[in-house]
Amino acid sequence: MSDENIIVRSQAHIFLAGPPLVKAATGEIVSAEDLGGGAMHSEVSGVTDYLAEDDAHSLVLARRCVANLNYPKRPNPDLRERWEEPIYDADELGGVVGTNLKTQFPMHDVIARIVDSSQFSEFKPLYGPTLITGFATIYGHSVGIIANNGILFSESSLKGSHFIQLCDKRGIPLVFLQNISGFMVGADAERGGIAKNGAKLVTAVACARVPKFTVVVGSSAGAGNYGMCGRAYSPRFLWAWPTARTSVMGPDQLSSVMEAVGKKVDPELKARIERESEAVFSSARLWDDGIIPPSHTRRVLGMGLDAAMGGSVRAEEERGREWGVLRM
Amino acid sequence: MSDENIIVRSQAHIFLAGPPLVKAATGEIVSAEDLGGGAMHSEVSGVTDYLAEDDAHSLVLARRCVANLNYPKRPNPDLRERWEEPIYDADELGGVVGTNLKTQFPMHDVIARIVDSSQFSEFKPLYGPTLITGFATIYGHSVGIIANNGILFSESSLKGSHFIQLCDKRGIPLVFLQNISGFMVGADAERGGIAKNGAKLVTAVACARVPKFTVVVGSSAGAGNYGMCGRAYSPRFLWAWPTARTSVMGPDQLSSVMEAVGKKVDPELKARIERESEAVFSSARLWDDGIIPPSHTRRVLGMGLDAAMGGSVRAEEERGREWGVLRM
Amino acid sequence: MSDENIIVRSQAHIFLAGPPLVKAATGEIVSAEDLGGGAMHSEVSGVTDYLAEDDAHSLVLARRCVANLNYPKRPNPDLRERWEEPIYDADELGGVVGTNLKTQFPMHDVIARIVDSSQFSEFKPLYGPTLITGFATIYGHSVGIIANNGILFSESSLKGSHFIQLCDKRGIPLVFLQNISGFMVGADAERGGIAKNGAKLVTAVACARVPKFTVVVGSSAGAGNYGMCGRAYSPRFLWAWPTARTSVMGPDQLSSVMEAVGKKVDPELKARIERESEAVFSSARLWDDGIIPPSHTRRVLGMGLDAAMGGSVRAEEERGREWGVLRM
Amino acid sequence: MSDENIIVRSQAHIFLAGPPLVKAATGEIVSAEDLGGGAMHSEVSGVTDYLAEDDAHSLVLARRCVANLNYPKRPNPDLRERWEEPIYDADELGGVVGTNLKTQFPMHDVIARIVDSSQFSEFKPLYGPTLITGFATIYGHSVGIIANNGILFSESSLKGSHFIQLCDKRGIPLVFLQNISGFMVGADAERGGIAKNGAKLVTAVACARVPKFTVVVGSSAGAGNYGMCGRAYSPRFLWAWPTARTSVMGPDQLSSVMEAVGKKVDPELKARIERESEAVFSSARLWDDGIIPPSHTRRVLGMGLDAAMGGSVRAEEERGREWGVLRM
Amino acid sequence: MSDENIIVRSQAHIFLAGPPLVKAATGEIVSAEDLGGGAMHSEVSGVTDYLAEDDAHSLVLARRCVANLNYPKRPNPDLRERWEEPIYDADELGGVVGTNLKTQFPMHDVIARIVDSSQFSEFKPLYGPTLITGFATIYGHSVGIIANNGILFSESSLKGSHFIQLCDKRGIPLVFLQNISGFMVGADAERGGIAKNGAKLVTAVACARVPKFTVVVGSSAGAGNYGMCGRAYSPRFLWAWPTARTSVMGPDQLSSVMEAVGKKVDPELKARIERESEAVFSSARLWDDGIIPPSHTRRVLGMGLDAAMGGSVRAEEERGREWGVLRM
Amino acid sequence: MSDENIIVRSQAHIFLAGPPLVKAATGEIVSAEDLGGGAMHSEVSGVTDYLAEDDAHSLVLARRCVANLNYPKRPNPDLRERWEEPIYDADELGGVVGTNLKTQFPMHDVIARIVDSSQFSEFKPLYGPTLITGFATIYGHSVGIIANNGILFSESSLKGSHFIQLCDKRGIPLVFLQNISGFMVGADAERGGIAKNGAKLVTAVACARVPKFTVVVGSSAGAGNYGMCGRAYSPRFLWAWPTARTSVMGPDQLSSVMEAVGKKVDPELKARIERESEAVFSSARLWDDGIIPPSHTRRVLGMGLDAAMGGSVRAEEERGREWGVLRM
Repeated sequence: MSDENIIVRSQAHIFLAGPPLVKAATGEIVSAEDLGGGAMHSEVSGVTDYLAEDDAHSLVLARRCVANLNYPKRPNPDLRERWEEPIYDADELGGVVGTNLKTQFPMHDVIARIVDSSQFSEFKPLYGPTLITGFATIYGHSVGIIANNGILFSESSLKGSHFIQLCDKRGIPLVFLQNISGFMVGADAERGGIAKNGAKLVTAVACARVPKFTVVVGSSAGAGNYGMCGRAYSPRFLWAWPTARTSVMGPDQLSSVMEAVGKKVDPELKARIERESEAVFSSARLWDDGIIPPSHTRRVLGMGLDAAMGGSVRAEEERGREWGVLRM
Repeated sequence: MSDENIIVRSQAHIFLAGPPLVKAATGEIVSAEDLGGGAMHSEVSGVTDYLAEDDAHSLVLARRCVANLNYPKRPNPDLRERWEEPIYDADELGGVVGTNLKTQFPMHDVIARIVDSSQFSEFKPLYGPTLITGFATIYGHSVGIIANNGILFSESSLKGSHFIQLCDKRGIPLVFLQNISGFMVGADAERGGIAKNGAKLVTAVACARVPKFTVVVGSSAGAGNYGMCGRAYSPRFLWAWPTARTSVMGPDQLSSVMEAVGKKVDPELKARIERESEAVFSSARLWDDGIIPPSHTRRVLGMGLDAAMGGSVRAEEERGREWGVLRM
Repeated sequence: MSDENIIVRSQAHIFLAGPPLVKAATGEIVSAEDLGGGAMHSEVSGVTDYLAEDDAHSLVLARRCVANLNYPKRPNPDLRERWEEPIYDADELGGVVGTNLKTQFPMHDVIARIVDSSQFSEFKPLYGPTLITGFATIYGHSVGIIANNGILFSESSLKGSHFIQLCDKRGIPLVFLQNISGFMVGADAERGGIAKNGAKLVTAVACARVPKFTVVVGSSAGAGNYGMCGRAYSPRFLWAWPTARTSVMGPDQLSSVMEAVGKKVDPELKARIERESEAVFSSARLWDDGIIPPSHTRRVLGMGLDAAMGGSVRAEEERGREWGVLRM
Repeated sequence: MSDENIIVRSQAHIFLAGPPLVKAATGEIVSAEDLGGGAMHSEVSGVTDYLAEDDAHSLVLARRCVANLNYPKRPNPDLRERWEEPIYDADELGGVVGTNLKTQFPMHDVIARIVDSSQFSEFKPLYGPTLITGFATIYGHSVGIIANNGILFSESSLKGSHFIQLCDKRGIPLVFLQNISGFMVGADAERGGIAKNGAKLVTAVACARVPKFTVVVGSSAGAGNYGMCGRAYSPRFLWAWPTARTSVMGPDQLSSVMEAVGKKVDPELKARIERESEAVFSSARLWDDGIIPPSHTRRVLGMGLDAAMGGSVRAEEERGREWGVLRM
Repeated sequence: MSDENIIVRSQAHIFLAGPPLVKAATGEIVSAEDLGGGAMHSEVSGVTDYLAEDDAHSLVLARRCVANLNYPKRPNPDLRERWEEPIYDADELGGVVGTNLKTQFPMHDVIARIVDSSQFSEFKPLYGPTLITGFATIYGHSVGIIANNGILFSESSLKGSHFIQLCDKRGIPLVFLQNISGFMVGADAERGGIAKNGAKLVTAVACARVPKFTVVVGSSAGAGNYGMCGRAYSPRFLWAWPTARTSVMGPDQLSSVMEAVGKKVDPELKARIERESEAVFSSARLWDDGIIPPSHTRRVLGMGLDAAMGGSVRAEEERGREWGVLRM
Repeated sequence: MSDENIIVRSQAHIFLAGPPLVKAATGEIVSAEDLGGGAMHSEVSGVTDYLAEDDAHSLVLARRCVANLNYPKRPNPDLRERWEEPIYDADELGGVVGTNLKTQFPMHDVIARIVDSSQFSEFKPLYGPTLITGFATIYGHSVGIIANNGILFSESSLKGSHFIQLCDKRGIPLVFLQNISGFMVGADAERGGIAKNGAKLVTAVACARVPKFTVVVGSSAGAGNYGMCGRAYSPRFLWAWPTARTSVMGPDQLSSVMEAVGKKVDPELKARIERESEAVFSSARLWDDGIIPPSHTRRVLGMGLDAAMGGSVRAEEERGREWGVLRM
């Protein structure tokens, strides 16, 4: 179904059914090369467009195909042409995070090691402080940063929803730094409408028409994964640090919950949850776009922004997609 | 995340974390009903919109919600479902035209034999009276009629241009009744800007985004053919009466002009012009969509309108074609 | 190049080059029927779509093709062609309001005397009950009704903002019934964010892309006038009952405020405020579209809806106007 | 600045400056009637459009103006308000299918028991006859039917792709009746480009912008599932008959293939394939929208069409989604 | 209602009702700082987004907010990159105007001191010469200039309307230089259709979709104010020279008119008209965007063009706003 | 009808009817200069906008008009900024073509003398090799080249249709190098669907929304003229080499065909066909945009691309024109 394709001679084959199936179905005996080899498809059936002599040749042809995509059509004129590296050293990120993942680490220290000049225009710094929101630039690209600094309360969720609206209106892409154990629970939170206010954050994340990027730097648990632009909310890229842990809840939380209803947790189950939460488990299942060392965060975000802002974002904005209802 | 929701009292619960998880997380002991029951969410947190007493009630509420989706939307009603035949007899059209084509015949009498109930809302009847403009309906379709009643002056042209703009804005198709020997000539006319004012009429005819229909009922000479939506101006249909004569100028005019520059006209040339101006000559070359008896005019216009207004006109309007500059 | 085509067996032929040209070009001798007959093209080459046995059959097939063009498209049916008058008598509206305007009168009783069958689908009836929101129909037109039943709190404002979003998405016009003395004041209200929550209601009123109608049935004071779609928020029509009073604050409130800062109010000023708040004062300055007897409310709303919903609302929706930021 | 205007004779005047100002400015003495009366402006300056004799006449003219606003616009009429039940009895569908699923059953007999009046306008009946394509109506809704009548060859795929384009352009929803064991395999098929031609069918199914409905009436195997609008191709509804069998290949085919490469199939595996292909297995996993008795097919299609065609289809068409490249 | 806001600690307050009103309404006694101070709104209610320590800090924050608007999104590629200063000295503008405002001063001399290189491509220089129209550049921005050089006649109005259409089609912003006492009056003018021709100029000004800028350099009287893009016609900026005089008519004209109808003018009224026509009177009421010395004209136009052409103008063009009917 | 116009004094005249016709029509005797000279139209009627003193002056004015078109509005950012001249010498093109037009000359050799660096990314080089398709750049502009290398078969047509779709999606303009004697004929070709496959090529050419350029380098015969973007398919420019020959068929082919049906060809007819096929015959009738020496091909294509890609192409893409049905 691709627009153009390349096949390597005497090596690749395309057929709806290979020689064994053909033999089984019709009795015909035919070699794979005759049935669906590169020469046949390039000369006779027209199924393939370019016949490469070997792998190296095929890479040359592939690069030529991409060069002829005539893409991007529109440049990104908004790029600030000069930027400076962060003042703080990205290699310190490992120390910032530390080894005890149950301790909340200071997210401002992370941001300072990712953004240009370590300059961060924080939005509503005093209100709902468990969610950090603000503007910065990364390699000259304007970004809106949304980073966890504790549990999500109604206030943090409303602030996040407000901030995402600002970025969406202004065409500023969003960067999510995930280290979230979930939304606040309990009677007070419920009476305060955490259900609908959390939903406002999730709605904003889902409806935003600008490119989104997510870095899971620590925990990614429960509904917090939704509110912080987890996989299902279509970030253009989602990277994980080795410290990332993705799960509905951790083994200790599970134990407490089951004990609260008078049950015990099987230790094997706890071990399995522990193991399946790990970054390598998720990454192996393609639930992210790669595990990166913390010190590479700025670099991969920069490449992602270059790719995303190059051509299609404006088109997306103009497509007139509308926001859903923001329940009040 | 839904637009509206319904909860059943003492039965359904909504919470981010239920009583066991809350107990595990914060030590708080609270009943499910107090934590996230229907009454609490409907009265206090606003998370739910409708509180049903039981399942049956919730179904009633759900049906009511769907009934209020305003889906599908209401179409506009058809205003003019009934129409009446003209009061005047279409068979008299032959008599109206008469046999001497050099005499201008009264175009109001033609219109009265074509439109519903013979009702014609004439626009600017006193200004520029050599061009008749006005609204009528034909088999219930609104139309704007533009008909010649003499030579086109600056005033007639401006009036026609104004009227075409009105119809274009309102999506009303145009019907041209052509019996035109041309635009006014001479020093007075030129100083009055007949060149630019005539061009306004032609521009309006060319730019109008509504379906156009032309009936050549008599002469169609010179630039008058342009201003009255001749073939090159893309009427959806162009019909001719047997009396139609299409030419740049008639043989007598040609003689006068040549005499004015001291030449004589070859009688053979005059005969040829005479012959090639006739409706059968044009029609044989597919320059029209058929010669019709005058009494069929209403009928063919009705069929044309049915075809043109059925589906595509709205699309055409929305395509956003822009008018050119109306030279002033 | 046509979308579909029909060929008559043993009669019609299609070929790029007929037998003579083929013979000339390649020497091949082949009959017209074998080279490009109806049977060959319908069964082998697929160049033709329908094989007719003879001319009559081909006409049947052609008519069938046209019948399948799906042209013109089907409109949506009008769902609510019939409606019923309210169960409650509109003449009782005077009694509902009473003579003491300082007493809040029951707005449900007003609605029951305006809407079809007195049927009202109330939205969030228990939450934020000082603002009544819900769906109804008036002469068959769906409407969203927003009516005051007390002071506007944060909850009432959020509910109103939510409800306006619902109507806006669904293309349902809004009817505001104003009897409002203002938003809640005081430290608790401020800490609860009445300023931003009230602004959400005002933003929703300002951004809604559906036609709006306002009836001032009682007080219209302070910022409540904004939240309830006062003149500056462009309702298509704004009518006033004789009981309407429009002002920033009433004379008694003014007295209290001035006393609170140790001043006295000039009795003349109080009288002037009293007088300039009256409906006749506003109406004389064209600040409304007329004073109506309460019993005419249903009738004028019906006419207003007919006018507003007739043609332009869809266009307006499609114009793609975007909502502003809903501060959170 | 108004579009049209009316003036009353000897009563109304229009001028930039009245007689006194003119006298003051230029010394000229002129009566109001001569300077800017109705007769002058209607006959000479063209500033006014209609000259009324008196006030009553002007009201008549005003009403006529409004009547000619062409507002609201006329909707398209609904062409097919009546339909008739199929001539053939839906209860015979069980007998049509029979009990041996390995025998191809006549799909025309199925169609005759589903569509209005059992009338089916077959498209390209002789070309690529293993895929049946054609137009019909179901409860008055135009539909394009695509039904399997054997293995998919290049010809059948091209025909299907052509037919889907027709329906897509015309806004006609598609109904797929699946009973497909796959695309043709083997050297001849490959050389004939089955890979790209099959892809054209799949591309057309994927790109079509009209609502799609799928009924799995028999086998749904291999890539045939894609070409016939299986789950991944987003039909609005996908129903299965109890006879439906969905799998990549059947157990017998698997045996043959494995034998062709010198292996044996584990009987347990065969049994598992058998079991997991059954309709109840698929339906339990929500891979369809329900198993229906064959005799209900017409009814559920009717309900699905009512839902899908009610409101959104036009919007979807207008959204301007573009087709991908149709590889040639 | 703003997207973001800043509040200064211990200085600014936001509340729906201040302490006195709260005390009057509810009896509660609360300090302004506790009720609606910066700290409370930034930390508790979330009504404010940034808490500044003092005024200087608030300006830093405000600049940062603007820097994060991500505006302009689109550059103006059409800017001619190099320009040259006018050949004529801007300081001579005072001399060009002179001291007797009743004398028409030569507008070409004004233009020559404003535009790049003093180059002006005059459009229709000989026709309707009381209105000067033509193209120039200001700091490299293409502009269309429309300047008064006498009373507006039908010819001048038509020429202006034509020229505005040209600029509108080409996306060239308009600069109006106002020194106008009105449209021509009298019987000849009226018969020539000054009413409709003047309306064409006003319609063009109102419908033009490009940014407009107005400089009132002298008189701005009567309907001339409309035709030359006065305040009500939404120029992006409107500046006044100290010599500007805005009024319906001057005191002397008023005297003549009143004498023509046999009345006398109260000298006090004349003095009042005189005074209220002055630039400082208008500017004090915000009817313009500032009084500028003539020599600054080029500079402020340049800044205005930079602001207006930076981002939104193209969007505006694409929004598809349509022109109204140009009455003929 | 033009936006602006220029007239030369005492030299050019504009009138609906010149002095002789005026004399004939009205008896009035008037000089051409008085009736419609430059001075009159520039000062009195306003029909002309600029009055030039002589031809040289008029050219200055014309250049100034174009400079004020504010065009292009949007730059073409996709232009590769550097390019290199072809490696092969354009002056060899004459030798490549040779003198015997009946011999097919190697089109790759032509392309190598036209495109930047003589680099050509050929698409599907082995399939359908009688039509050459591929990407290259000309003065930095990406282009898709389609060039004849023999008769058009089904395979060549499908390949061309596929390639045009690719370019259309990517906004890459198309360059056609025509040297085509027609589509393949005969029973095999017909059974293979040459009629519908050729139509796919023609459909693609007609529907492509990117600018098209055609160079007729040799024969342009029969339906091949359509498939290779002949005049009727609206290339932005169509140039011919002196070797171009445009006709339905050549005189020799005509002889063979007539002989095949037993007739003889009149030698005079053959001579006439010969003569009317020549490039000078076509060019004299404006059927092309000029005959160019082969060595200028690159240069004129470069200028054409600059003109076409400057401003309007994107607008055209966005206009949402849809492709027709690609018959399968």
